[in-house]
Amino acid sequence: MEPPAPDELAVGRALAAQLQVRCLAAGLRLATAESCTGGLVGHLVTGIPGSSGYYLGGVIAYADRVKHELLAVPDATLQAHGAVSAQVAAAMAEGACRRFGADLAVAVTGIAGPDGGSEAKPVGLTYVAVAGVTGTEVRRHQWHGDRGANTRQSAEAALRLLLERLGEEPVG
Amino acid sequence: MEPPAPDELAVGRALAAQLQVRCLAAGLRLATAESCTGGLVGHLVTGIPGSSGYYLGGVIAYADRVKHELLAVPDATLQAHGAVSAQVAAAMAEGACRRFGADLAVAVTGIAGPDGGSEAKPVGLTYVAVAGVTGTEVRRHQWHGDRGANTRQSAEAALRLLLERLGEEPVG
Repeated sequence: MEPPAPDELAVGRALAAQLQVRCLAAGLRLATAESCTGGLVGHLVTGIPGSSGYYLGGVIAYADRVKHELLAVPDATLQAHGAVSAQVAAAMAEGACRRFGADLAVAVTGIAGPDGGSEAKPVGLTYVAVAGVTGTEVRRHQWHGDRGANTRQSAEAALRLLLERLGEEPVG
Repeated sequence: MEPPAPDELAVGRALAAQLQVRCLAAGLRLATAESCTGGLVGHLVTGIPGSSGYYLGGVIAYADRVKHELLAVPDATLQAHGAVSAQVAAAMAEGACRRFGADLAVAVTGIAGPDGGSEAKPVGLTYVAVAGVTGTEVRRHQWHGDRGANTRQSAEAALRLLLERLGEEPVG
């Protein structure tokens, strides 16, 4: 008999619960800007009862046009660096912060796979960014899983980056 | 020994795969507008490789202000009927359709629980709406699960409504 399937979102849920406690305590309001994670960060955040106390909402900016039109990512930045780049991740986070009037915003852009990779930008390459009053920070990751695993790891990395910005040691 | 945990998102994933085949065949581009599902519809849609061929993106409109500012839901509609209403669901879908320049948009607004219910609007009450060139349609559901189950059922209902609009018999 197979062992029980692990809850693949358990780590993400634990991080989201920790983030909620911290944001509610600090009175910080959060927005999200997601490309490759397609809404998973929002799903994890809103899975915790009481999340409406600090989560304003987000933009799922799957098409590049949406990154420009809803998050004000400059077309020149998209063209010069590509959608999966540190520059676009930073611009997405800053754009979400402004658009939602949030204290803090997190952004994710990456190549979940199985298609869309290249030698310079392989499948699994992901940038997460956090923006807020104390500035913008970007982190680069290279995952090696399938589409589902890459997406989950990207969402967890986004939550961890938020917790680090808040001076917390992430659980999980 | 416990039986293996079922994959709670399996039905939603099957519906999303079916939706993708149908939208790609018809050349239709989709947008989403989610409140109580918090990004789960987007997560299911983008879990299928190739989803960028038809999915433009979405707005996670968790706060009422976001429903107004990003999806152009009139403040008067929010005040007269409340965020969880057929009227707001319809306005969210229509707003997403326009904002993203999509052919088709789906919206979800509901009370996932455990808090936020009332006698008139109990926990589990959810409206899903689809908007497109052939008009807008809204459906009312009353779920009886916990927060996670209500959210999953709402996301599945949104995908089913899209498939019905496209003249498909939903699987799962």
